[in-house]
Amino acid sequence: MIINAMERIMKDLLDEYKTRLQLNCTCNECLDDILALTLNKTHPRYVTKAEKVMYIKAEFIDKQEMTSLLVKLAECAKIVSDNPTCQNQQKEKI
Amino acid sequence: MIINAMERIMKDLLDEYKTRLQLNCTCNECLDDILALTLNKTHPRYVTKAEKVMYIKAEFIDKQEMTSLLVKLAECAKIVSDNPTCQNQQKEKI
Repeated sequence: MIINAMERIMKDLLDEYKTRLQLNCTCNECLDDILALTLNKTHPRYVTKAEKVMYIKAEFIDKQEMTSLLVKLAECAKIVSDNPTCQNQQKEKI
Repeated sequence: MIINAMERIMKDLLDEYKTRLQLNCTCNECLDDILALTLNKTHPRYVTKAEKVMYIKAEFIDKQEMTSLLVKLAECAKIVSDNPTCQNQQKEKI
């Protein structure tokens, strides 16, 4: 089993901040788009056991590190929010 | 759902080449270590649907791109093979 610890960390961060990111759409499709975009811009941290994710998470307790992740998340949230590709948006256009 | 397409691509590549990489140990722990190390050195390509993995895989049909992935995999395989941390190796040392 291999896990990118950044996946869990970004998911938790998005859950915590999604109401404050002023998203046009908060459907699962858009949230996945935000996560995928953010993770493509983030250095991966693969570990081989689920419990090791916590060690990586601990590195981000440092406020500056966590803030830089949050900045990336907010930038990607804006991109997806400005250009949503989910089913809801397609329906609105029709 | 989000998936790093590089996970699938690297897993397939390791399955294909593991017999030729002259590994000291081919247990699942060591194979996971090789994958995690390789993926930490590879730019992630997250997608939001399983079927999109194929589009990313298609980009690596280019021989030069695939070779550069294989070089990374071989380097990481050597590192893990030279410094195995699996249960089998621990037993041998005792």
